[in-house]
Amino acid sequence: MIPFEVTILGNSSAIPTSDRHPTSQVLNHRNSYFLIDCGECAQQQIRKSHLKFSRIKWVLISHLHGDHFFGLFGLISTFQLLGRKESLIIYAPPALEHILKTVFSAGGGNIDFEIDFRSIPEEGGEIFDSDFIKIKAMPLNHSTPCYGFHFQEKNLPRKIDKSKIEMEEVPIHALHKLKDGEDVQLEDGRFLKNSEWTLDPPKPRSYTFITDTRCISDLADEIKGTDMLYHEATFLHEDKKRAIATLHTTAKEAGAFAKKAEAKMLLIGHFSARYDDLKPLKKEAQTEFEESFIAKEGKCYKIKH
Amino acid sequence: MIPFEVTILGNSSAIPTSDRHPTSQVLNHRNSYFLIDCGECAQQQIRKSHLKFSRIKWVLISHLHGDHFFGLFGLISTFQLLGRKESLIIYAPPALEHILKTVFSAGGGNIDFEIDFRSIPEEGGEIFDSDFIKIKAMPLNHSTPCYGFHFQEKNLPRKIDKSKIEMEEVPIHALHKLKDGEDVQLEDGRFLKNSEWTLDPPKPRSYTFITDTRCISDLADEIKGTDMLYHEATFLHEDKKRAIATLHTTAKEAGAFAKKAEAKMLLIGHFSARYDDLKPLKKEAQTEFEESFIAKEGKCYKIKH
Repeated sequence: MIPFEVTILGNSSAIPTSDRHPTSQVLNHRNSYFLIDCGECAQQQIRKSHLKFSRIKWVLISHLHGDHFFGLFGLISTFQLLGRKESLIIYAPPALEHILKTVFSAGGGNIDFEIDFRSIPEEGGEIFDSDFIKIKAMPLNHSTPCYGFHFQEKNLPRKIDKSKIEMEEVPIHALHKLKDGEDVQLEDGRFLKNSEWTLDPPKPRSYTFITDTRCISDLADEIKGTDMLYHEATFLHEDKKRAIATLHTTAKEAGAFAKKAEAKMLLIGHFSARYDDLKPLKKEAQTEFEESFIAKEGKCYKIKH
Repeated sequence: MIPFEVTILGNSSAIPTSDRHPTSQVLNHRNSYFLIDCGECAQQQIRKSHLKFSRIKWVLISHLHGDHFFGLFGLISTFQLLGRKESLIIYAPPALEHILKTVFSAGGGNIDFEIDFRSIPEEGGEIFDSDFIKIKAMPLNHSTPCYGFHFQEKNLPRKIDKSKIEMEEVPIHALHKLKDGEDVQLEDGRFLKNSEWTLDPPKPRSYTFITDTRCISDLADEIKGTDMLYHEATFLHEDKKRAIATLHTTAKEAGAFAKKAEAKMLLIGHFSARYDDLKPLKKEAQTEFEESFIAKEGKCYKIKH
């Protein structure tokens, strides 16, 4: 199976506790990593999770509250000390570029690899498009410009049935056509019917990351049927007033949103330091959406269709 | 006994390991804290050590390599979220002021308490002088301006012998004179001999923090007889070439320096991530100076004369 999995590095909101860290997670797609948010201590959490620093190709920062990017300085320094040569591509709200330049020009030390900074447009939209995956940034409802990210795998070509190839030789150009879903008439007279020669490719999977925000019901349509949804659930519903005042979401609201979006699975996170025990948050989300789970630090969740 | 003790929050050099953090320590003097350096994760280490955030009055930053100040952003954010009102006084090389302003104006969120920034003069010298303690900044030998800090308790007034006061009434102005070491002739004819009425005050203690630097032999005279010396020992002596190239100190050199300075006790720290086992570093320092110890994270060391 093609790797597509997320490792949670931090599930705490702005004030970390002694055993919960600010937001950060590593999304592994085909053994290349998207680092989503980078709260303080992210680099140490990466190390503890035995993830390879060299596989981090892209960083996505949802917004510029410190608990979502203060770990980036240390991570970049460590990349430098480990001898990184490859560019690091960072998607973030525009103001981060000046912050990074200031920190590293004035004090943080020289950085010898390229930091390829790409501002997320104010209105969001598609920010990444490779052969295998595309990413959409979705404006959220928070006290500073903030974006959710929706990762959608692309359709793969059809798979040649290996058992057929072992029986008969077929020229390469014909294989390409078969992969594209076509029937093939060969010059030697053979007719290769696509349905006999190919198998369905794996179904494209999707992952959605949404924090920090008041719950936005309308977003459910944009991510309809997502295979895994990470959504913040900073508060219990009994603290809804606080959620409204600070532009955050309750566990109950996160569950209702996952249901509306017809997600396959919900991970909740960004928990307020006021809760020592996280089980009540999970239970509350489950009253709305059964497949709700606590996003546990250090745990890797496989994204399945 | 008047509290004077240091808690080690991080003993790692620039690249943290999964269980060692970058440089930071809390020096508690009379229940007010000096935070010395503030590497990433310092706030979480403070929490784990059950130290009170509200007691941190002063921050001293030795130099502007990221592993010595990248934790300051998160700590300041947490102060804000905890509702701090009191000024935070920061002593650091001048460039940090602009970095802090940039990070917090552009993205980190509003800070409602005063950050009272005080540049360490290039040539070092006395940077702090209260009723109880004074601090000297000492220029070190590193790749960016870097300072060691020497904390010297002041002489306290003589202590009135309580058993005498219980026997005889004495006017307050006479007590003040006694504390200052004077004999007192009272109007009622009594003569109070200082040596009979007072006891010696506790002896002033001192603490010295030195990292990152090639070992500077001449500094030994400046801190002669220090009660506790924290000195970096980034490398084993077999890696001396690396120590010279990166302007750091070996464990053997740190031990020899402690001996020359006639320190009472040496804590070594700032260990390279290349060493899983720290015991050889301790042993090596002890070949030069017996009272050498590993500065263990989470451990509190009392400073005694």
